[in-house]
Amino acid sequence: MAKRPLKSKDIAKLVKPSVRALTAYHVDETRVSIKLDAMENPFPLPAQVRDDMARAVRKAMVNRYPDPSAIAVKKAIANIWRMRPDQMILGNGSDELIQTIVMAFGGPVLTPTPSFAMYDITPRALSQDVVTVPLTREFDLDADAVIRKARLTGSRVLFLASPNNPTGNRYSDAAVRKVLENVTAAVVIDEAYFSFSGRSFLPYLRKHPNMLILRTLSKIGLAGLRLGVLTASPAVIAELNKVRLPYNINVLSQAAAVTALKYWSVLDRQVKVLIEERKKLYQALLRTPGVTPFPSETNFLLLWIEKDATKVFHALKRRGILVKNLDRTGPLKGCLRVTIGTPEENRKFLKELKHILTTD
Amino acid sequence: MAKRPLKSKDIAKLVKPSVRALTAYHVDETRVSIKLDAMENPFPLPAQVRDDMARAVRKAMVNRYPDPSAIAVKKAIANIWRMRPDQMILGNGSDELIQTIVMAFGGPVLTPTPSFAMYDITPRALSQDVVTVPLTREFDLDADAVIRKARLTGSRVLFLASPNNPTGNRYSDAAVRKVLENVTAAVVIDEAYFSFSGRSFLPYLRKHPNMLILRTLSKIGLAGLRLGVLTASPAVIAELNKVRLPYNINVLSQAAAVTALKYWSVLDRQVKVLIEERKKLYQALLRTPGVTPFPSETNFLLLWIEKDATKVFHALKRRGILVKNLDRTGPLKGCLRVTIGTPEENRKFLKELKHILTTD
Repeated sequence: MAKRPLKSKDIAKLVKPSVRALTAYHVDETRVSIKLDAMENPFPLPAQVRDDMARAVRKAMVNRYPDPSAIAVKKAIANIWRMRPDQMILGNGSDELIQTIVMAFGGPVLTPTPSFAMYDITPRALSQDVVTVPLTREFDLDADAVIRKARLTGSRVLFLASPNNPTGNRYSDAAVRKVLENVTAAVVIDEAYFSFSGRSFLPYLRKHPNMLILRTLSKIGLAGLRLGVLTASPAVIAELNKVRLPYNINVLSQAAAVTALKYWSVLDRQVKVLIEERKKLYQALLRTPGVTPFPSETNFLLLWIEKDATKVFHALKRRGILVKNLDRTGPLKGCLRVTIGTPEENRKFLKELKHILTTD
Repeated sequence: MAKRPLKSKDIAKLVKPSVRALTAYHVDETRVSIKLDAMENPFPLPAQVRDDMARAVRKAMVNRYPDPSAIAVKKAIANIWRMRPDQMILGNGSDELIQTIVMAFGGPVLTPTPSFAMYDITPRALSQDVVTVPLTREFDLDADAVIRKARLTGSRVLFLASPNNPTGNRYSDAAVRKVLENVTAAVVIDEAYFSFSGRSFLPYLRKHPNMLILRTLSKIGLAGLRLGVLTASPAVIAELNKVRLPYNINVLSQAAAVTALKYWSVLDRQVKVLIEERKKLYQALLRTPGVTPFPSETNFLLLWIEKDATKVFHALKRRGILVKNLDRTGPLKGCLRVTIGTPEENRKFLKELKHILTTD
């Protein structure tokens, strides 16, 4: 028997090569006064909501395991979004639900590009292949190319974000429906930004049992709770429940979510303010030389910067404003992504950006 | 192109066969007055802790994403358990960490049997093979058999619970160390019940870089928070961080855990009471005809029932006491598992059990 003890580097070699090849997801944790990088709702919850939430947490039985079906949360969400509680699964953010989906269906996973990073990261972490299809020049879905590639590669899951992150637009309905009708795969419509567009594929769920709809409470004011929502046909839900961890939503998340969702009108009003702010910022940027904003149905704007975008990103950061730098070779060369903040934050962002673009 | 829309049963067929073959994890949700099935700490947190927790939650920025490294929680735990914060990963319960480990190392996964159900369920949900090796008649680890089978199957991960659930005993140190020294695999020592035994493999971490230690806050009073803890060599932590979801521990869990851990002495006192109660219940059951308790270093007792154990399980349930029924063909034939409750609950359990065993 081998007696030489294993060394630290030996044990790393036991890790799957597909995992060793990955790099850990990087979060820019620079402390800034204006944080516009993560599509968070900039408005804190009002005092009354916080008080109620604190009360609910005080009463929660923290020494007991959570309700494995999180039924109270499901009912509250189902009531607001007109879903069926028995056709829902909750996750720790859509991140966990993306993982659950890939675990159940396996790869290859097909995703248009550019799109949400986790559609690429999660399958790779599960050692599944990822297949990409470029969006059109207008960032629309190239339905024919997607269908062709899905068939060619035998893709089992497609992730389509509607609206899409980081481009901000919604794919055309016709393209999405053509894909839905012509692939033998699970088609995930990720409606994370649905509240900012008002358009949903939910009404088509009965017609397309291969469609899964993802949503999240993260973009509308509850990012800290990490609550993702999936609805799909009963057969799909039954399969996904087999791979879901049984107690995935903890006691405090459940108590806090049920409380916060009682104040839906508060969150809804904040969303409406953000949509108005997005429109204003978009118009102002259209009139700003050296920058071109793309149309958006989300709570962020994709910007093309005439100058060196990376330099502009760093200049903004030095002035205490963090946005997302997307400036690398490819379709987003020269692009930054800015989350819609409070009216005050948006004004400051615009002012600093103009200053940076006109000096130098 | 195919125009016939996919039917619900067709889409279920797209799910991996390995997943379709699974059944969803079943939780007995019968409402009972005395819940002794899930190894929860029966004592609610004192009012002062709840008040502080509620205050922390009230202040938490629920509209922002959580700290991806959950560093405040790690530091609090590291301080109590003498770990290094930079050698830790937190999960939504050890369940998520078991998943993370299997994602990184892949299968086959070897586990002694009987042991914790998730060592079997989680690899299967990830479509990885599971290899089992029976424990000895005394429920100890059969080191030679484990080493042989690990080599024969090329097992990449071993899960050893110390103390073991559902048997309640700790494997002998010599057997565990022999396995650690003689397999080329990641060896996970799951110390979920460590607080009730006081014995740990943590001091051997430097000597065995292939060892990963799992713990949890669930058994010591915070099951509702779902906080699992993993510590391992830096090389292993770096690899696991690649597959971990970036924002897996939410804002409320972080705030509540940091607060609760300030009151460690309260939890510790509760643990000591439970250990005393376990000893008392064990002694009382030794003196009870028709039942044999197994020695335990956990917060539960495995019981062998002379009569039909399943009947006794249902009789207890009818009297409002839920325990875990383990009575099926195999080494646990005739066995029930009872979690140590409050002194009052344990007295009632003992009284009802005696009544059931002597009548019929």
